[in-house]
Amino acid sequence: MIYRYFIELSYDGTRYVGWQIQPNGMSIQEKIEHCLSIKRNEKISLTGAGRTDTGVHARFYVAHFDVSTPILQSNDFIYSLNSFLPEDIAVSAIYPVHPEAHARFSAFSRSYEYQISLAKNPFVNPYAWYVRHPLAHEQMQEAASRLMNHTDFTSFSKLHTDVKTNDCTITRAEFTRDGDRLLFTIEANRFLRNMVRAIVGTLVEVGKGRISPDEFESIIISKNRALAASSAPAQGLFLTEVKYPSWVFVPDVSDKSS
Amino acid sequence: MIYRYFIELSYDGTRYVGWQIQPNGMSIQEKIEHCLSIKRNEKISLTGAGRTDTGVHARFYVAHFDVSTPILQSNDFIYSLNSFLPEDIAVSAIYPVHPEAHARFSAFSRSYEYQISLAKNPFVNPYAWYVRHPLAHEQMQEAASRLMNHTDFTSFSKLHTDVKTNDCTITRAEFTRDGDRLLFTIEANRFLRNMVRAIVGTLVEVGKGRISPDEFESIIISKNRALAASSAPAQGLFLTEVKYPSWVFVPDVSDKSS
Repeated sequence: MIYRYFIELSYDGTRYVGWQIQPNGMSIQEKIEHCLSIKRNEKISLTGAGRTDTGVHARFYVAHFDVSTPILQSNDFIYSLNSFLPEDIAVSAIYPVHPEAHARFSAFSRSYEYQISLAKNPFVNPYAWYVRHPLAHEQMQEAASRLMNHTDFTSFSKLHTDVKTNDCTITRAEFTRDGDRLLFTIEANRFLRNMVRAIVGTLVEVGKGRISPDEFESIIISKNRALAASSAPAQGLFLTEVKYPSWVFVPDVSDKSS
Repeated sequence: MIYRYFIELSYDGTRYVGWQIQPNGMSIQEKIEHCLSIKRNEKISLTGAGRTDTGVHARFYVAHFDVSTPILQSNDFIYSLNSFLPEDIAVSAIYPVHPEAHARFSAFSRSYEYQISLAKNPFVNPYAWYVRHPLAHEQMQEAASRLMNHTDFTSFSKLHTDVKTNDCTITRAEFTRDGDRLLFTIEANRFLRNMVRAIVGTLVEVGKGRISPDEFESIIISKNRALAASSAPAQGLFLTEVKYPSWVFVPDVSDKSS
């Protein structure tokens, strides 16, 4: 018998090569698989909701894994797992899901937040892109709203990736100003590799007055990565939400502890 | 002729031995004096609003310094200083003050914030005290409010310091809950060394139910440091405000740039 679980977590990606196991450094996936396998005394593999690049953070991330016996007293298990994991990774929930629930394929929406800082700030800037040039954020908002008129984001995609389609449905693309911070929130059914950072990099050019909102839309239509600007740095990017349909969730009958 | 200036700044204290120059490591004062002296091409000494201990942070800090010629175009000067200073120290303002204004002696109030985290959180906990035990924060608030009935805080002071009096007038001592964080704000005319951390350490014992609010008040009255609990860790403490009377502020006639 196989029992499938979702694990919800958050991490500061600064020290990691991203979610996915890589030969060239420590990944979040590897850290958690290692701790889970030791704590459960069986080899556990994680399937994540998606990749995050080197240095990208997650305030909310979901992965699934299978175990041969149910997890009892999941609160105690989470506590013990968190004590074992480093400070920059925190598990917030573990619960049983439908056997066909898949952290990546069942998800119908993801949200990212990108933090731009407009002033030197020792507490914000390690998690932001510090842009010294004044930014016209109404222009940036106008350009961002054009994203929702289109579905092919080849212009903001890493070249030569193996995905079958560059189509994404963006349902939210919004700037909010909070003091000296400019926060960009974007939600879509899926994202291409590097897409959010390429979009933000290009929107900052709009903010500097170098690209107009109309030109921004032409860049989308061109499907030409070379016309978009450089990607915004990884340290300002946070995965903030992953949404699943209700069928994936099942009642946790084995857990009497919570 | 001597021109006196206030400099306002913020810093992440993680890497430093505190504000004041120490033989055993890098201080904030030393870093800024070094950069200021180079940028102004004269030896500049800073007098800070007060000490902060190793690892303590400041969202707002004030120091004064004297220069032999006025600082022109202070915005450009701040920009250039910030480019030169490390990421964890940021200057937000530099402005002329009354020649007798003193960053430490003229200040009539200081505020600190102490951050307690009630859950593992990769983004909050490097700047908080992570307390795993459930805390009764109404009891903590009740005990905290007793602080304002007293002025002698010998019980929460480092022993054998050279100050003439242990009298402080506390005007605010308040807990606020924000999700999994418990924030303690305290304002007083002055603070003794280690005082906020000793108070927070003891209030957490109140939260755990080991000390009642009445017992907390007895500890204050006892003037016995041995009865108070261990100090809360430095990483959760932030200096957040220093207030001055209006006479210290003078119009900035030399600066045409802002």
